Amino acid sequence: MRFSRREFSRLAGVASLSSLLPSRWSSAQAQSTGGQGIRWCIVGLGRISMDHFMPAVKLGNSGHITALVSGHRDKAEKQAAIYGVPSNAIYSYDNFDAIAQNKEIDAVYIALPNSMHAEYTIRAAKAGKHALCEKPMATSVADSKAMIEACKSAGKKLMIAYRCHYEPVNLKAVEIIRSGALGTIQAIESDFGFNIPAGEWRIDRKLSGGGPLMDVGIYSLNACRYLTGEEPQEISAYSSVIDHDGRFKNVEENVSWTMKFPSGIVAACNTTYGASMDGFYRVHGAKGMLELNPAFGYSGIHMTGQIGREKIPDLVTAPDPAQFKAQADHFADCINQNKEPKTPGEEGLRDMELMSRIYQSAGLPALS
Amino acid sequence: MRFSRREFSRLAGVASLSSLLPSRWSSAQAQSTGGQGIRWCIVGLGRISMDHFMPAVKLGNSGHITALVSGHRDKAEKQAAIYGVPSNAIYSYDNFDAIAQNKEIDAVYIALPNSMHAEYTIRAAKAGKHALCEKPMATSVADSKAMIEACKSAGKKLMIAYRCHYEPVNLKAVEIIRSGALGTIQAIESDFGFNIPAGEWRIDRKLSGGGPLMDVGIYSLNACRYLTGEEPQEISAYSSVIDHDGRFKNVEENVSWTMKFPSGIVAACNTTYGASMDGFYRVHGAKGMLELNPAFGYSGIHMTGQIGREKIPDLVTAPDPAQFKAQADHFADCINQNKEPKTPGEEGLRDMELMSRIYQSAGLPALS
Repeated sequence: MRFSRREFSRLAGVASLSSLLPSRWSSAQAQSTGGQGIRWCIVGLGRISMDHFMPAVKLGNSGHITALVSGHRDKAEKQAAIYGVPSNAIYSYDNFDAIAQNKEIDAVYIALPNSMHAEYTIRAAKAGKHALCEKPMATSVADSKAMIEACKSAGKKLMIAYRCHYEPVNLKAVEIIRSGALGTIQAIESDFGFNIPAGEWRIDRKLSGGGPLMDVGIYSLNACRYLTGEEPQEISAYSSVIDHDGRFKNVEENVSWTMKFPSGIVAACNTTYGASMDGFYRVHGAKGMLELNPAFGYSGIHMTGQIGREKIPDLVTAPDPAQFKAQADHFADCINQNKEPKTPGEEGLRDMELMSRIYQSAGLPALS
Repeated sequence: MRFSRREFSRLAGVASLSSLLPSRWSSAQAQSTGGQGIRWCIVGLGRISMDHFMPAVKLGNSGHITALVSGHRDKAEKQAAIYGVPSNAIYSYDNFDAIAQNKEIDAVYIALPNSMHAEYTIRAAKAGKHALCEKPMATSVADSKAMIEACKSAGKKLMIAYRCHYEPVNLKAVEIIRSGALGTIQAIESDFGFNIPAGEWRIDRKLSGGGPLMDVGIYSLNACRYLTGEEPQEISAYSSVIDHDGRFKNVEENVSWTMKFPSGIVAACNTTYGASMDGFYRVHGAKGMLELNPAFGYSGIHMTGQIGREKIPDLVTAPDPAQFKAQADHFADCINQNKEPKTPGEEGLRDMELMSRIYQSAGLPALS
């Protein structure tokens, strides 16, 4: 016998359990900006901006795009035409600070190589703008702290773009776990990785700060934290470079790590730049198991599992860019209602500190 | 496009690659005893003996059952009737050494609580019998060495019952990896566990020697070794007890560990007695991924995966007791042809030493 949809809803407490959930997990989908859109300046026109974030702003309720920052004027003009951005609101990295004089910008979305996150977040704050910054928030713990401090001093919001905190299937996973339906959680497995092409900025430590851990392993690390609701007490890790083909001169190829949480939950994770890993997690409780596979994609996130002998109905996330939309909407809400984002700078800082411990445990330099 | 069965056979090298494989993996299925059956004495009439091993002997070519050892005469007589064992070939643990005088016994199959493995293997060797002993081979490294020494001194074979080394889907996984079809292997994930009922001998350290690591985590550990063909260089582990319900007074509830192999391959593993874990592994190579889920069951072992963009055809193991049959047949071959088993005492000893390191890393007593 399987659960009917209604029984599952009851079980997982779609409605009734929301009051039991930690507030930062309870109502991501219910929020809306109430029509008070904000005005976005997009900093960096890479794939994540053009293919995911900008279409999501267009579809969502967070507001609209009023300015662009890019090193490629041609590319920027094409995007400006699509989104109705005036030509005089296209900035380069040289005249970035002029955004301060543009009253048609409330917030920036920063999607640059990791090493530029801190500088442009801090400059945005000094220009009087709120900042939504991609993960990892920086390439060092010190820079992360400086970003938090700069936004605080300027009285501006800082949010780190942890998509999965705004993605319905991940939210449902957390809801099921917090409801107690899986019983006491004992152990988690997670992975995320891909086989990186030569020449990507991600394998240049100066730009990325590190290898797959910083880029995709961070999803597994962050997931273990939001799934358990705990901070890891102990971390132990190994890293390696197997392929001596020139790609891994200054970043790691593989990292494997285990963590122990205060309640006793243990987690085992892998990340790589040398092989494909779909990005999954599996949560084992005394009464049941829940798996998201894939767990971290832009679309197609897929939940399976079982409670006792009964299957959890398959749940698949809405197509892209739903989660980017929810994320942008949330930040607009926080600005409009003067609320702390669910994934503030401090959330990013915690991952930076933990990744630094992982690197140190693996015998690599700290992210200090 | 998917592989046709024929293409897959070619790819995975069902026939042609066997010559490239390490000898202990190459021909498990091709072997047969050539009609020279051996005479088995079954030591311990638990579920694994009665439901799996004994039916497998009956179906296979390893010989037949000629004697039984049990503390329960009634149970033994019922089994004796099924397998045609004469009444005077039913032994108790008190008169076990009398098997020395029974010329109708060539080998014993030892399926007792772990703490009794060493004693009965050594007594069997002294009685002039070969021994196939269940895993884990003992509860201490010292006992494991004593078992190897006793069998060597007596000129008798010692094999540890690592089923998966004789199971076709696991063998196919190794074959695909060795063929290079997955490219350079980077990382492995594995788990195995279950929610143990109170009162089982397995949670009494005196009988079991340890918790889930000794009982089921050993499958993941051993798999990482046969999948890579390497011995782990570094191991780091955490353990915990979350459920303070009386079950985990002297064994661990959860263990999570990572390993680094000489080539740089990393592995992340979990085991538990507090939740259900189907027992899986996933092997990530530069060109493809292979998963067995479940990987270690008595039946239904299921391979999926992909090489590049093409799916590996699903492969499911033959129903139980096929792998017990292959295992028993192999041991009979080794005896008849005076060959070293593919999983000799030394294979069991290596796992014992590694599990001891895992326990020590987790702050638990060594298995010394």
